[in-house]
Amino acid sequence: MASDEIPAGSLDPQQFIREQVREIGEAVGQGTAVNALSGGVDSSAVTLLGHRALGDRLKTYFVQNGLMREGEPERVISLFAGLGVKVELVDAQEEFFAALKGVTDPEEKREAVTQTFYKKVFGRLVRESGARFLLQGTILTDVDETVAGIKRQHNVFAQLGIDPEQAFGYAILEPLVRLRKDGVRKVAEALDLPASVFRRMPFPGPALAARVIGEATPERIALVRKATVITEELLSSSGAFQCMAILHQDRVTGMRDNRRDYGLQIEIRCWDSVDARRALPTRLDWETLENLSLRILDEVPGVVSVTYNIAPKPPSTMEAV
Amino acid sequence: MASDEIPAGSLDPQQFIREQVREIGEAVGQGTAVNALSGGVDSSAVTLLGHRALGDRLKTYFVQNGLMREGEPERVISLFAGLGVKVELVDAQEEFFAALKGVTDPEEKREAVTQTFYKKVFGRLVRESGARFLLQGTILTDVDETVAGIKRQHNVFAQLGIDPEQAFGYAILEPLVRLRKDGVRKVAEALDLPASVFRRMPFPGPALAARVIGEATPERIALVRKATVITEELLSSSGAFQCMAILHQDRVTGMRDNRRDYGLQIEIRCWDSVDARRALPTRLDWETLENLSLRILDEVPGVVSVTYNIAPKPPSTMEAV
Repeated sequence: MASDEIPAGSLDPQQFIREQVREIGEAVGQGTAVNALSGGVDSSAVTLLGHRALGDRLKTYFVQNGLMREGEPERVISLFAGLGVKVELVDAQEEFFAALKGVTDPEEKREAVTQTFYKKVFGRLVRESGARFLLQGTILTDVDETVAGIKRQHNVFAQLGIDPEQAFGYAILEPLVRLRKDGVRKVAEALDLPASVFRRMPFPGPALAARVIGEATPERIALVRKATVITEELLSSSGAFQCMAILHQDRVTGMRDNRRDYGLQIEIRCWDSVDARRALPTRLDWETLENLSLRILDEVPGVVSVTYNIAPKPPSTMEAV
Repeated sequence: MASDEIPAGSLDPQQFIREQVREIGEAVGQGTAVNALSGGVDSSAVTLLGHRALGDRLKTYFVQNGLMREGEPERVISLFAGLGVKVELVDAQEEFFAALKGVTDPEEKREAVTQTFYKKVFGRLVRESGARFLLQGTILTDVDETVAGIKRQHNVFAQLGIDPEQAFGYAILEPLVRLRKDGVRKVAEALDLPASVFRRMPFPGPALAARVIGEATPERIALVRKATVITEELLSSSGAFQCMAILHQDRVTGMRDNRRDYGLQIEIRCWDSVDARRALPTRLDWETLENLSLRILDEVPGVVSVTYNIAPKPPSTMEAV
């Protein structure tokens, strides 16, 4: 597929959909394909494009990697059932946590998630299903950042000189690779996905593993999952491009019941952005900030400190990991 | 000395000064005393009380521990020269950094600074000077927090059951121990100290060692010193009780010149408080926050991320270390 950018402004979503459906159909021929649906706008759009092109010959999986947000598998599976798409839940929590054990470097953590996802879990699913193609929702910003060496996105291979056919045993189709996030949202809307999907804030490939600094253990993921619920509840109506809670590894001195408590810190980031290439911290009002902080301090065990990011991208990136 | 609290509201500063001058005079008799001046409001008030009581029989030192703020020794020494008080500069940088080497736990770091200050440096100064008394600016909040086990203040001994005479070879006088910060400010003003001193924001005993999470190396102290200059420059007119920059140990992903830069994070805290027992983050406006962030990102090498504290004390404490 060509990788010339299609800017959102000059995108005709219905024409784009027709073209991609045709291209997917031609590439897969009479074979079968698989894809992984996370519930984000990118993978949701790809799922519907794939089903328009292939019908039942596309098998869609939701991989429960243990790193997802609260209630996410149930929500996604029932939403797509309502759209007539059957999604199969694959429980791979143990494999992911085993791969993440002891890993603290951000790039090694991303690589552990990538290898577990593409090689172990998807390798097995593809072998079992007999499919030769994987459809995935890579977008142009993923490619840019990975190729520039800023952050290894889990879904970028060819552009790094990796042949998925050789590495994993299947070919990868990327119908969204010429779009950025704003373009994907237009396509998702044109595909009749609900606003809760086409307006959904971005969420990283390595999921909550990207939201803890240091080791992603089940316990630390559970803490950041709780903070994420609160953050999204209070900030999803802010109109921000993306918001997140990050569990730090540093401990800071705090006090509980008038005694010292050497506790945890949660950092909140909330971004204004058009296409994720540049971003500014959302100028939240103080009532929201204080509410956020008090709820996290109250509801997330062990947390004694909450901060709000005030640095722009660049030199920050959206995610801390 | 009695340790019943004197609330700032019912404090008569001139009467308090007369009483303390008399008590210091009676305690020291015809002997000599020493004290350490850091330039903060507590040690500045004690220095003037001591000089009123003892004149030249009080020897005042400024201990350059390598952990002070930019330009601090020169500023303090020249200010007190103008008040007729001679201050001797003691260079002890190597001893402090040697004691801090490899120490990352906050309480061990505080203990390393305490031991170096009271045992090594002051032990030597007291022996050389023949003094039998050390005057110091401990206030009631220091005692409370240390006794409660929240944070070991460097200047609290008797209340922990430590006999300084036995531990260090000299007795300690604490003329401010019945006051909190607001009371000390009234006393400092009544002692004719300039507003830049009696209104000065509090600064911790372990100085910038309390402003780095993890090891306090000369390099890391230099980074947080730069961030502190910017923070105080932009926030000292905010009317806040205290403001600070904290260098984290966690690294976060950032980007410079369109390449990945696994860099440093600085956290800013700015507190509204009356007496430091409870405190709220100052509701700074967004222009100030953005200014602060951009200057730190520009001027402090290696920093890719800046956050602002939004948690109250409790459960936070004012300092992170």
